[in-house]
Amino acid sequence: MLNTKRIQSAQARMKQQGIDAYLILTHDDYIYFFGEDRYQPRAVIPAEGVPIVVTFTGEEAEVKESLGVEDVRVFGSVGQQIKDVVQVMRGMMGEKEKLTIGVQMWFSTPAFLLNMFQRANPFVNVVDIAPVMDELRMIKDASEISLMQRAAEIAGIGMETAVKTLRAGITENEVAAEVEYAMRKSGGHGVATPVFVNSGIRSGWLHGTASDKVIEEGDFVVLDLVPRYKGYCANLCRTFVIGTPSAKQVEMFETYKDAQAAGRAALRPGAKMRDIDAIAKKVFTENGYGEFYVAGISHSIGLGFEETPAPTIHPGDSGIQICDGMTVTVGHPVLSVPGTGGVRLEDTFHISEGKAQPLTVFPSELV
Amino acid sequence: MLNTKRIQSAQARMKQQGIDAYLILTHDDYIYFFGEDRYQPRAVIPAEGVPIVVTFTGEEAEVKESLGVEDVRVFGSVGQQIKDVVQVMRGMMGEKEKLTIGVQMWFSTPAFLLNMFQRANPFVNVVDIAPVMDELRMIKDASEISLMQRAAEIAGIGMETAVKTLRAGITENEVAAEVEYAMRKSGGHGVATPVFVNSGIRSGWLHGTASDKVIEEGDFVVLDLVPRYKGYCANLCRTFVIGTPSAKQVEMFETYKDAQAAGRAALRPGAKMRDIDAIAKKVFTENGYGEFYVAGISHSIGLGFEETPAPTIHPGDSGIQICDGMTVTVGHPVLSVPGTGGVRLEDTFHISEGKAQPLTVFPSELV
Repeated sequence: MLNTKRIQSAQARMKQQGIDAYLILTHDDYIYFFGEDRYQPRAVIPAEGVPIVVTFTGEEAEVKESLGVEDVRVFGSVGQQIKDVVQVMRGMMGEKEKLTIGVQMWFSTPAFLLNMFQRANPFVNVVDIAPVMDELRMIKDASEISLMQRAAEIAGIGMETAVKTLRAGITENEVAAEVEYAMRKSGGHGVATPVFVNSGIRSGWLHGTASDKVIEEGDFVVLDLVPRYKGYCANLCRTFVIGTPSAKQVEMFETYKDAQAAGRAALRPGAKMRDIDAIAKKVFTENGYGEFYVAGISHSIGLGFEETPAPTIHPGDSGIQICDGMTVTVGHPVLSVPGTGGVRLEDTFHISEGKAQPLTVFPSELV
Repeated sequence: MLNTKRIQSAQARMKQQGIDAYLILTHDDYIYFFGEDRYQPRAVIPAEGVPIVVTFTGEEAEVKESLGVEDVRVFGSVGQQIKDVVQVMRGMMGEKEKLTIGVQMWFSTPAFLLNMFQRANPFVNVVDIAPVMDELRMIKDASEISLMQRAAEIAGIGMETAVKTLRAGITENEVAAEVEYAMRKSGGHGVATPVFVNSGIRSGWLHGTASDKVIEEGDFVVLDLVPRYKGYCANLCRTFVIGTPSAKQVEMFETYKDAQAAGRAALRPGAKMRDIDAIAKKVFTENGYGEFYVAGISHSIGLGFEETPAPTIHPGDSGIQICDGMTVTVGHPVLSVPGTGGVRLEDTFHISEGKAQPLTVFPSELV
């Protein structure tokens, strides 16, 4: 069902920013406003008036019923879908000479689609919708927290399965299969990033995948899970060693654990994103790992796996202040030491009552 | 290992097109040239000389060993990664005032990254790399066909699992869990699109997902699978009815089956993409379903789930001629009839020795 309160908040901000309408092309904001998802989310929220959903003819009845939106435009082909959007734009023109339309400028807005849209609508001035949406999405309401809590539980079930499955001789991909399956079976709706199972030399990767590499005795294994529940994500990452860890492996692991704990303790309303980073970096440096530290220990999470503030992507976000209602991870970058491998521990927190309450719960043990 | 032959073919085409270098930002072309994948594929292929890979410090040793690329630039932060790319660009300038850089303009090149790239490199003229890559990637070599064959086998295993799992009372998401698991266990490396399990009213969707909806007696269930094997996709879609189908359901199913067969028979070197569409549409029209037909029965497939020619996305591609070596699906659009639901049957074919040889093999039976 359409969330009227959220739509009104967005409309108020659109008016402040001089944006005539928000053209939704991505899953996250479609879910945010309409409470459900579809493969091709297409909608227009004007600064004033009712939202317009653009959908395939075969989905019309169901869209009307499940969203409660009156103004549903239907298309029967790709060409018609584009024409529908243009028509909606023209209908909004009224006396105006130019329309200012907000679009999300993040990973899932393809460059070529935006170019096509601009060519088809020469009277439209496209702007980034971030100044409208970031403030809204940064602060989670109770219903969002409960969905993220569920995603966090599912991540915990995935990690438990990983611990049961991990042994020397199994491939990364076999571990990923079991983890993915356990998360789906416990109610998860897929993953926001592929399940990472990075072992041995691959544990040093900045990001990961699961490959056909066989996991060996003595390998560091980094497991990073970001399941979704009704669109919402939780991020849980742990690092294990198969067999007996070396002194160096233990040292790296303990250093990461200390840095994560220090970062979490600093995660309070009033602190800036960069403060968390500085505190974590200090721990790495004191332990002799300063040169291997990759900036960006924290990022916000919700309908997006990495969303504003995400200094991990937009360095400018490091000046954003933490406040109650945010959901933030601590432990994003890998501590990668050539010759030994990599360690990461990441958890998702809800800033509430002045401190960071964990959403993901799983012991951090190396073996 | 770096595929020298493919790099040379691309370089020859780049020179013809006046493109100084191809900046790779996407998985498909990275795999195409380097034979392996990483989470952030970043490389530059100059029109002349050796390719340059840009990677995270912790991945350097492994990249050098596995790719055999000499020129590897390493970064330790997001900011540095951007600087590295700028530096590579500047290094290529020589006496030139402007550089022409090709970038892939498809779904996975985000609008904001391209904008950032252009702002950071004002001396660069960005062009679409399609005129270089499309011709190369359209025609598959033997090694590509064998990877797609493997992906097709995995899709078959997934569909077999679906048939075993489907029953009234189970949710779409539970079916997706079993199918995804079976495909991973049999060697698949994840999926190119989420496993679609669309039942009842949802079977009429143009595209799909798997939801918590319970599958009921009499439901149409559309199952669409696109597993990946080493980056390569195969697409297999089937529609089932739980219990006894209605006469209308049987009629829709048989019509789709006939249209798919007619499309396949027409899939020969010399025919154009639009011919396949016209023939399929004729069958739908003769059976009284013309008004429900959505154009685009065929698209190419390979490292991309939908790649050129893809009239399903770019209507202009419908003029492209089919030739030996292509891999194409037949059966893309859903036949969606309000009140009854939707039917789709899709298979992947290899055009070889003048006709369409099936890669995916699975019986088309409604019950």
